[in-house]
Amino acid sequence: MSKGRDVPALVAGARAGDARSVARLISMVEDGDPRLREVAAALAPSAGTAQIVGLTGSPGVGKSTTTNELVRALRVAGHRVGVLAVDPSSPFTGGAILGDRIRMQEHTTDPGVYIRSMSSRGQLGGLAAATPQAVRVLEGAGCDIVLIETVGVGQAEVEIASLADTTLVLLAPGMGDAIQAVKAGILEIADVFVVNKADRPGADATYRDIQGMLGLGERGPGDWRPQVVRATAVKNEGIDDVLAAIAKHRAWLDESGRLRAAHEHRAAVEVEAIALGTLRARMGNLRDGTGLSALAARVADGTTDPYSAAEALLAELGL
Amino acid sequence: MSKGRDVPALVAGARAGDARSVARLISMVEDGDPRLREVAAALAPSAGTAQIVGLTGSPGVGKSTTTNELVRALRVAGHRVGVLAVDPSSPFTGGAILGDRIRMQEHTTDPGVYIRSMSSRGQLGGLAAATPQAVRVLEGAGCDIVLIETVGVGQAEVEIASLADTTLVLLAPGMGDAIQAVKAGILEIADVFVVNKADRPGADATYRDIQGMLGLGERGPGDWRPQVVRATAVKNEGIDDVLAAIAKHRAWLDESGRLRAAHEHRAAVEVEAIALGTLRARMGNLRDGTGLSALAARVADGTTDPYSAAEALLAELGL
Repeated sequence: MSKGRDVPALVAGARAGDARSVARLISMVEDGDPRLREVAAALAPSAGTAQIVGLTGSPGVGKSTTTNELVRALRVAGHRVGVLAVDPSSPFTGGAILGDRIRMQEHTTDPGVYIRSMSSRGQLGGLAAATPQAVRVLEGAGCDIVLIETVGVGQAEVEIASLADTTLVLLAPGMGDAIQAVKAGILEIADVFVVNKADRPGADATYRDIQGMLGLGERGPGDWRPQVVRATAVKNEGIDDVLAAIAKHRAWLDESGRLRAAHEHRAAVEVEAIALGTLRARMGNLRDGTGLSALAARVADGTTDPYSAAEALLAELGL
Repeated sequence: MSKGRDVPALVAGARAGDARSVARLISMVEDGDPRLREVAAALAPSAGTAQIVGLTGSPGVGKSTTTNELVRALRVAGHRVGVLAVDPSSPFTGGAILGDRIRMQEHTTDPGVYIRSMSSRGQLGGLAAATPQAVRVLEGAGCDIVLIETVGVGQAEVEIASLADTTLVLLAPGMGDAIQAVKAGILEIADVFVVNKADRPGADATYRDIQGMLGLGERGPGDWRPQVVRATAVKNEGIDDVLAAIAKHRAWLDESGRLRAAHEHRAAVEVEAIALGTLRARMGNLRDGTGLSALAARVADGTTDPYSAAEALLAELGL
């Protein structure tokens, strides 16, 4: 609900840096508000004005602390910063966990920072569609850097990483060895590795493992070589090195012409997610009717197979 | 490729317990082979004959070791066992990591166990569609229990957990505190918590934290109360307790009538995933044409918004 304020007023408010307008627009994104297309149309011209930095890693590696310190340093450097903390793994609770956001409250009185925990309560296409919409709101509000922090490393994180211009993967010593990192598929998505908790035993081994695995990867002469940076975010150590790596990647994106390609890829993912979400909603509506549940019952008792049932479902939708 | 053998012969082979036939059928599932609908039709009558046990947890908690010990104990108890190790987080490599499967080789000469690492190379609908198809193959081969092991805890794991009759979540001391567990959304999906590495410091605290959080949840009188079990899989300790918890949950599913509901839910997810995959494939084919990429370029340069582009995309598909 926009509580009486219409979309043009909210968008104008966001443009002027009004935090409440930004918050309301992101709520509309989360809720899948029908006026979203109007919002998106109004925000289209500011598309691509921020560097989108994804930040991911297993629970416990220190993502929130690192994000907090990055925000502090980016503010000192004069950036306007947006933070989206995305929790793709909890479709049940209808809301992201806010507990560890509390320590970010030091930034909540700073008008140059927007912080938001996101869930995908009603958005068609889930977080894959909702996250870029929220980024659009933050770009509209003048943020030149947007941090997207995700919980864990899974397919949803990989999808969200594919929306980022620059992806940071956090590791910590003792959180599992290099094989586990490969298992989680993170080698392929990382532009920058941050070995956090670098003051702990095993940090050097983790650093070496990652460097070793990067040495095995095949890269062409113009390709980006992922950076590996040591940090101890809780002591505010190494944060400048992380920022330098982010800036270096941004410079490479500009010089190599990959930034435009990244933006087009992100737009394609976004458009496809919205389109699939629309189709999924049409099917979902059938769940309460006789269509899908009747077909599912027949699959469950073995009188039909799932492919035939899917065909029947699509036929029922006229697809 | 079935190398000259036709589908009826492969299905008959799988029914007779021929491991090569099982392996070929699962390869067909992974590859999205067009003959899958024929396979699915042949396997439909054996639907729902196995208890599907999902097993998930962060990298490093000891999932592979626990799976291995569970298989050993289930074999001793006379079960025919299927194991699917699913890696949803690595869409890039085109294959699940096999490294830690090596230690399972002790079971590879046992004709009562089928072990398979799965990826979703070409399957419409990804692993959400492929995994239940592979389960169907294993049910057809006479497995009465199928373990699905996933890497990490993310949305894909939650989706796969929704396919399981019984979901085990592994935790280990020192892998992050209770808040992290809540963040990862695992409280909602677990039927059984296994506190693995129970011989390590902090295991009691992890056990108490989980018990405490379970106490906060709301449950009706007929609802299942998740079990919490301690184990040290690497020493083969506590495995019988894990099996007892799995059996107890199975008994509850039977008595409460939830098993049929779980099977229908699984079928609905499966049918929907196949149907969405079909639609996604139709869109994906546009990626190489002018449709999606031309629209994405316009979104990237801000001359249109993603909702209008999605509408145009669907119109182009006649949807």
